[in-house]
Amino acid sequence: MQIKELGEFGLISRLTAGLTAANTETHLGVGDDCAVLHYGEERDILVTTDLLLEGVHFDLQYTPLQHLGYKSAMVNLSDIYAMGGRPRQLTVSIGISSRFSVEDMELFYSGLSRACQAHGCDIVGGDTTSSRTGLTISITAIGDVAAGQAITRRGARPNDIICVSGDLGAAYMGLQLLEREKAVYNQQLQEAIDRGQKPDELPPFEPDFAGREYILERQLKPEARADIVKALADAGLRPTAMMDISDGLSSELHHICSQSNTGCRIYEDRLPLDYQTAAMAEELNLNVTTCALNGGEDYELLFTLPLTDHDRAAALPGIKVIGHMTPPGQGLLLIGRDGAELDLKAQGWNPLAT
Amino acid sequence: MQIKELGEFGLISRLTAGLTAANTETHLGVGDDCAVLHYGEERDILVTTDLLLEGVHFDLQYTPLQHLGYKSAMVNLSDIYAMGGRPRQLTVSIGISSRFSVEDMELFYSGLSRACQAHGCDIVGGDTTSSRTGLTISITAIGDVAAGQAITRRGARPNDIICVSGDLGAAYMGLQLLEREKAVYNQQLQEAIDRGQKPDELPPFEPDFAGREYILERQLKPEARADIVKALADAGLRPTAMMDISDGLSSELHHICSQSNTGCRIYEDRLPLDYQTAAMAEELNLNVTTCALNGGEDYELLFTLPLTDHDRAAALPGIKVIGHMTPPGQGLLLIGRDGAELDLKAQGWNPLAT
Repeated sequence: MQIKELGEFGLISRLTAGLTAANTETHLGVGDDCAVLHYGEERDILVTTDLLLEGVHFDLQYTPLQHLGYKSAMVNLSDIYAMGGRPRQLTVSIGISSRFSVEDMELFYSGLSRACQAHGCDIVGGDTTSSRTGLTISITAIGDVAAGQAITRRGARPNDIICVSGDLGAAYMGLQLLEREKAVYNQQLQEAIDRGQKPDELPPFEPDFAGREYILERQLKPEARADIVKALADAGLRPTAMMDISDGLSSELHHICSQSNTGCRIYEDRLPLDYQTAAMAEELNLNVTTCALNGGEDYELLFTLPLTDHDRAAALPGIKVIGHMTPPGQGLLLIGRDGAELDLKAQGWNPLAT
Repeated sequence: MQIKELGEFGLISRLTAGLTAANTETHLGVGDDCAVLHYGEERDILVTTDLLLEGVHFDLQYTPLQHLGYKSAMVNLSDIYAMGGRPRQLTVSIGISSRFSVEDMELFYSGLSRACQAHGCDIVGGDTTSSRTGLTISITAIGDVAAGQAITRRGARPNDIICVSGDLGAAYMGLQLLEREKAVYNQQLQEAIDRGQKPDELPPFEPDFAGREYILERQLKPEARADIVKALADAGLRPTAMMDISDGLSSELHHICSQSNTGCRIYEDRLPLDYQTAAMAEELNLNVTTCALNGGEDYELLFTLPLTDHDRAAALPGIKVIGHMTPPGQGLLLIGRDGAELDLKAQGWNPLAT
């Protein structure tokens, strides 16, 4: 059977189906943002890991190594925050092809270190090896949370409100912009070569990024939402379920509804969008709602709260109530601007389809 | 600067030079088999990670996926045992190219699961993605040890005896045998193609592995030495320093001597060798001592004990006393069978040189 028939989550389900925990320390295993390990009375340990491969997850033609280091850390820290935890340690494994210099790796590490410092996280180990092919990055983050207080994807109930932090779709639009400018550059380069010019005779390429700084930063240098976890705690709000939006809002809602055994209704006119996201979508003739639902790489937090918390949640800056959970069997629905009900399809990025 | 000028440990030193721990939970960071994290009063947490890349660390032409899964787990479990710890959890990230089927990944996972079950370890998470190139495997193992009892590389003192478990050099000789038979097969295949035959018209290739089963198993299916950690504990023996032998005995002795600030003397005639290792080395015209010192991938334990423990250690099955530590400045020496003193060079496998 071909792997793409199953998709990432189907494959993981199949491979991990027979697993049972041998250790009482294993409180929560495969299937959430982090594993939850119970090693002491006061705190639980959170563990998450991400594998980033050149050509699949990043393109070094337009990704500065410093930003790549920063983002590699952030995508893992984001998973710790998505459990309501605090990141503490990171391990960093890198496979390096011979085209990289020591200075390149120092740039990568400086971005990584800056991300760790900003979030009070220590780099405690890793592995360094050569790669015959592209740059390979594998990071594991470890964090902690008060015992029993990790926020999973399982706890949402019908009538809970659905909230997201920040705005959606910007990272995806940033990626589209980078890909467009890359194509322009590569075309100019090819034309020059066809004319018999050497690449270094060309004037420096100036990509058209004016007024698009926000979406570029969202793609290249995302920030894990430690501030939202803190704001919720300060306001005494405890999400019933939470996860980070890495694959796209639709896909993540499917996870929460499936694991909490609920349906959901979200409202198109409540989706938080930045002006640049909308403008870029229009320029590229893309449906901005589709980008917000399925774009991925937002690294915002998606969470549910009891209905009684609505007013306090809505009053918090940077948080938007986009809908509510429903009983199981009522489907996962997007209510359009015209009131039409559409099925929410989990067509977020499939890392096994590329 | 080219990375190979620095080598793996030079590069790691340079990249991690400025790191300071922000968390009191970070007890020991980069530079040992595992990081040691202090999250509770009773137990410390151990974390280790390894990145395995196709074409660098393994060759799928002769490595069954089930064995690869088993070995991928073992190399990490070995690092937990090398701290005197007990493995508890594992995360598994894999980058899969399109040539693999679901069934292939099930084979890989079955080997991985078998290794975990044999060592009472739970698979608690990971990441699964496509790879544009070869198979990528990144595993992180988590274990525990009584608080303050992790055995580092730092504690050896002059006059401590140096011990190794099992025997050395066999995994390397197994690799040489596999590479030889691969070359024979590829040559037969090429000759058949040159004759106009189709590969599937050839009789099945029968590699010449008779009487070499042990060295093949050492290469393809190594076993982490949980039994040695238990035997030492049962005998009341507490190593002053310990690590596992993954890069080769010479390289590991350099780490322990450097971190413990000692020299060492080991004796060529004390190096534990299996008969198959010696026979294979002779057949390939290789110096068996060099293979034992620098072969790597033995996944045996190298440890030091106070001199007063000599008789009890020497009485334990599967443990050999190979020499003793010396004061700093006295060098790292191999005493040959003829009594000559040779400098021990750390010419173990350099993962950044390939």
